[in-house]
Amino acid sequence: MSKPFIDQLTAAVKAKKNPVLVGLDPRLNQLPSEIRNAFPVDTPQGQADAFEAFCRGVIDAVAPLVPVVKPQAAFFEELGPAGMFALAKVISYAQEKGLLVILDGKRNDIGSTAQAYARGMLGRGQSPWNADALTVSPYLGDDSLTPFIDAAVERNAGIFVLVKTSNPGGAMLQDLKTESGETIYRKVAAFVEGAALKTATESGYGAVGAVVGATWPAQLEELRTAMPHTWFLVPGFGSQGGTAADVAGAFDENGLGAVVNNSRGILFAYQKAPYAERFGEAQWQAACEAAVQDMIAQLAAETPAGRL
Amino acid sequence: MSKPFIDQLTAAVKAKKNPVLVGLDPRLNQLPSEIRNAFPVDTPQGQADAFEAFCRGVIDAVAPLVPVVKPQAAFFEELGPAGMFALAKVISYAQEKGLLVILDGKRNDIGSTAQAYARGMLGRGQSPWNADALTVSPYLGDDSLTPFIDAAVERNAGIFVLVKTSNPGGAMLQDLKTESGETIYRKVAAFVEGAALKTATESGYGAVGAVVGATWPAQLEELRTAMPHTWFLVPGFGSQGGTAADVAGAFDENGLGAVVNNSRGILFAYQKAPYAERFGEAQWQAACEAAVQDMIAQLAAETPAGRL
Repeated sequence: MSKPFIDQLTAAVKAKKNPVLVGLDPRLNQLPSEIRNAFPVDTPQGQADAFEAFCRGVIDAVAPLVPVVKPQAAFFEELGPAGMFALAKVISYAQEKGLLVILDGKRNDIGSTAQAYARGMLGRGQSPWNADALTVSPYLGDDSLTPFIDAAVERNAGIFVLVKTSNPGGAMLQDLKTESGETIYRKVAAFVEGAALKTATESGYGAVGAVVGATWPAQLEELRTAMPHTWFLVPGFGSQGGTAADVAGAFDENGLGAVVNNSRGILFAYQKAPYAERFGEAQWQAACEAAVQDMIAQLAAETPAGRL
Repeated sequence: MSKPFIDQLTAAVKAKKNPVLVGLDPRLNQLPSEIRNAFPVDTPQGQADAFEAFCRGVIDAVAPLVPVVKPQAAFFEELGPAGMFALAKVISYAQEKGLLVILDGKRNDIGSTAQAYARGMLGRGQSPWNADALTVSPYLGDDSLTPFIDAAVERNAGIFVLVKTSNPGGAMLQDLKTESGETIYRKVAAFVEGAALKTATESGYGAVGAVVGATWPAQLEELRTAMPHTWFLVPGFGSQGGTAADVAGAFDENGLGAVVNNSRGILFAYQKAPYAERFGEAQWQAACEAAVQDMIAQLAAETPAGRL
């Protein structure tokens, strides 16, 4: 693709008029029976085939509605190599259907090893995995992030660095205060914002984004102010407790600057009220679609995303 | 396997009388021409086949000498799904040859996603990847580490949590001091040691180990004292500048408690003095073997590993 990832993301969010990111987290025991019965799911290959078929079905349902999806590497990697082939096929299928793809791998390592991850994963049509963007973990520090940033810039791709994660235990390190009174997550945020500023396009945002959980509304506001060039990937909406009102602070005044992830709440909507009653298991794709539409409406009503 | 990983590791280090961990980091441009010419390395599948053949050759050379190997996931993942199949085959081959396998993936995520990684990767004969142990990153905090610890205990496997990494940039977060004057790496170390203590076997060591770089000799000593139940995985020896004397502090008084990784210095010994002259490219396996024997001798001369 010819444009920087962040410009593609901005354009896609504007075109679809919403910031919903659908997380592709297939879980065997929650797959609709139609899918489970179509494959020998007692083998890794059968389970990988079922995951691929399910994700294709989700993509078919949501591609007309949302700008971007986020396959979770762990659920595919859990199946061994067969799962990794399915992951690659899901990424390609999503892109064929016009979606951007953020691969959620939370990878990191040092020096030439970080380069290997970055070269392997980042860049549509330029890497075996073809991800448009990748999530990256920061514990190894600045020289471990630089290879990902460089590859992202070179290949018109993006990265999202973990800053303030949605889980309660994230506080163990991220909320520690340093001698200067600043939290660890603000230290990471400062590095990320610096890298975002250096790589910013005319959109105002850079190739380096941040993961900031929907479960921390005050920190979302704090970091939105502190990180004006950094696009946020916001997990924790729905199943983890984050609401539309909680994520309002993640956006800029134009409703840009954040995508809000929902995985289980969309993928397995057919199992939950009110969708279970309206659609039932056979219409699981219609349930996905309705759950996306409701999330779009909630964000439009309660956040600046309503201005999109 | 019937014994906890840490007991298997202790037994293997005692049986081989050395703590050398051979890192399996295949790099295309450094493969011996014998291997490069045998496969169509301009395709991901050809390159994956070359990586597998090379790693099998390394394993053949080092299996009689060392207790454990560490495949680096990034170099296989760089090749896409084909690389992941090669990784699985390399893990199995190393185990067939009597080696323990620590998969270096530096994985982590939250809750059920962390469980998916742990279930997929940990446990020989009990997971698609069959790793005896896995490296794990701690930025996401305690509740992200617990699923890995639980799976390790349940399956007689192990994990090594990043504490103080070998790269200079590791200092960015790890060396920050909190308000109480303690470094971040000591905060992680305290959690790891607590988990190691809870899972300790009669060996005195637990299912949870720590990654501490050879490039920080003072911190190796400091952490050895602070973490008496924690086995160390020590990267950074050789190419990154760590010497045998630098890693002396990693061991307990019996020469146990640490494995010291060397990747490039062994794998590509045939390209470097004095092995290049003695062996040349055609005898690259003999060069690996000689480099391992020299490292064993250096550690025996300058560290408590000499008591093994």
